[in-house]
Amino acid sequence: MGEFGLIELLAKVVGAKKEPKSAAWKQVLVGIGDDTAAWQGDGCVQLATTDSLVQDTHFDLKYTRWEDLGWKAIAVNLSDIAAMGGVPKYAMVSLALPGEMDADYVVCLYQGMGEIANKFDVAIVGGNIASADKVNITVSLIGSLEGKTPLLRSATCPGDLVAITGYTGMAAAGLRMLKRKLKLDPKSSELLSAAHLKPMPRVKEGQTLLKLGVKAAIDISDGLIADLAHVCKASKVSATINKDLVPVHPVLKTHFPGDCEQMALAGGEDYELLFTASNRVIAKVKQSLSCPVAVIGEVTKGTPGEMKVVDDAGRILDWQNKGWEHFKSG
Amino acid sequence: MGEFGLIELLAKVVGAKKEPKSAAWKQVLVGIGDDTAAWQGDGCVQLATTDSLVQDTHFDLKYTRWEDLGWKAIAVNLSDIAAMGGVPKYAMVSLALPGEMDADYVVCLYQGMGEIANKFDVAIVGGNIASADKVNITVSLIGSLEGKTPLLRSATCPGDLVAITGYTGMAAAGLRMLKRKLKLDPKSSELLSAAHLKPMPRVKEGQTLLKLGVKAAIDISDGLIADLAHVCKASKVSATINKDLVPVHPVLKTHFPGDCEQMALAGGEDYELLFTASNRVIAKVKQSLSCPVAVIGEVTKGTPGEMKVVDDAGRILDWQNKGWEHFKSG
Repeated sequence: MGEFGLIELLAKVVGAKKEPKSAAWKQVLVGIGDDTAAWQGDGCVQLATTDSLVQDTHFDLKYTRWEDLGWKAIAVNLSDIAAMGGVPKYAMVSLALPGEMDADYVVCLYQGMGEIANKFDVAIVGGNIASADKVNITVSLIGSLEGKTPLLRSATCPGDLVAITGYTGMAAAGLRMLKRKLKLDPKSSELLSAAHLKPMPRVKEGQTLLKLGVKAAIDISDGLIADLAHVCKASKVSATINKDLVPVHPVLKTHFPGDCEQMALAGGEDYELLFTASNRVIAKVKQSLSCPVAVIGEVTKGTPGEMKVVDDAGRILDWQNKGWEHFKSG
Repeated sequence: MGEFGLIELLAKVVGAKKEPKSAAWKQVLVGIGDDTAAWQGDGCVQLATTDSLVQDTHFDLKYTRWEDLGWKAIAVNLSDIAAMGGVPKYAMVSLALPGEMDADYVVCLYQGMGEIANKFDVAIVGGNIASADKVNITVSLIGSLEGKTPLLRSATCPGDLVAITGYTGMAAAGLRMLKRKLKLDPKSSELLSAAHLKPMPRVKEGQTLLKLGVKAAIDISDGLIADLAHVCKASKVSATINKDLVPVHPVLKTHFPGDCEQMALAGGEDYELLFTASNRVIAKVKQSLSCPVAVIGEVTKGTPGEMKVVDDAGRILDWQNKGWEHFKSG
């Protein structure tokens, strides 16, 4: 059934007995199925998310420094808060580690977490450590919203344009470079390896989107098309992407000429923001953000979650959703 | 250095650069090192905790039903909120699972989580699923406080009496019974297996302690003496336990006559509450709670965290801290 089908099923299981609704359930604005949960707090809307990095699933210690691992464990959660337009505040870290591991590594891990936490004004306030065969770093991050409604996957509608910040495919290219030990020029190598190992979440950008009137967004973790499909499924709409409008970074074009488009469309872990809005709102966004913003398609009526990929000539491409699912079952 | 030494070190690492203090850090009331973190929210004090159950470290799928595993994953976090006197509200679940696992098991896991979450008015609002070799269930739980200051490990002082709710050692006995496949009478078997597999956190009891003026508490997860030592270390005091005052459940006396005292003093995962207060406050607590409450010792001046175990005859026993550390390093 895959990760996403399973999540839908589990959302039903935990929500099944919520009548009569308890006090906590009554406050919930966004439950399972968006980038973060959201509930009405005393003063403002609260956000919370959790995400894990699992050894040999998400990272390989052969080419991952502990500092970078700590950075990324926090970064992927920051990115979820960013995709809601929120302000990240408090982090907790649940660590599973082989018992014989050198404590110095763990200190490096926490230094990396501390570095990015300080950068984004996040306080690491708690956690726990358990023994395990392999490393599992699970971070949960709590934040708040300046505004009443977060950026939602379920809030796009036909006629909205689809836009992304920055470049996609960089992390996928970085992963391939590291895995295959490709030797690129130092500048390209640094750029791509940072894209995979030390991603920079778009926290301020997410807040700006919300302020400027954007309603729907997601962070690109599963791949551009897969994540747009999540948005469209949640909003019960379809979308058309023009692949020739998807920006491909020059470094990708140079070093991966055959695969760069595929990487940009389907490479995961980019942690860029994908959002939808009117032409007018997107014009304001472009003016406000210092990072590149590209319009790459349009939201349409149609089968919920169905993606159509076309090119500049208007040809429909035979696109298979190759977004990476973290978990396959059955 | 062990789990606890490492946690102290990491608390220093993440707190090291917090000057000038960011907005989030300024709100923090309790950081790493207590049962939960606490910070000043808009209306009331917010609490958050995270805890993991790791396959073959914390549970064995040979004798653990998935429903019970789900229950326990939430219960151990509820217990941390209980130890602060808080009200649990929102839970998130980060799951790592072998990719080939039957989705039915995951549904059972979530049914168990849903069961206890409903019982304690907790809304399960989010989570994620990743692929891994072994099962890791990490729950984070967010709650709030009715009051200004939570029950703290650091708030005991010499002269306070040491008290516990219920019976300790039951979970340790249950674990031994399950591991060694001991055949006890059905009633004993059910009691002990539930103590290990399906513990009931003392949430209401924690709230009552706080209301009645108790200042210091901890939940007994590492073992009675080990957890009292955590309290004493955090409060920079020492304590004396009279082992003959530690209640030993009749079932333990019957089936584990040689080890029952050791189990009650050092068995982990009881999820009872250990607290300290004046005689007067403890009398009120005994009146208010329907569960047993036993005074088992006294807080004293002395080396921070040092535990003295005596018996009714006043003899000092050669007690080694045998509380279970989840994680040993170096």
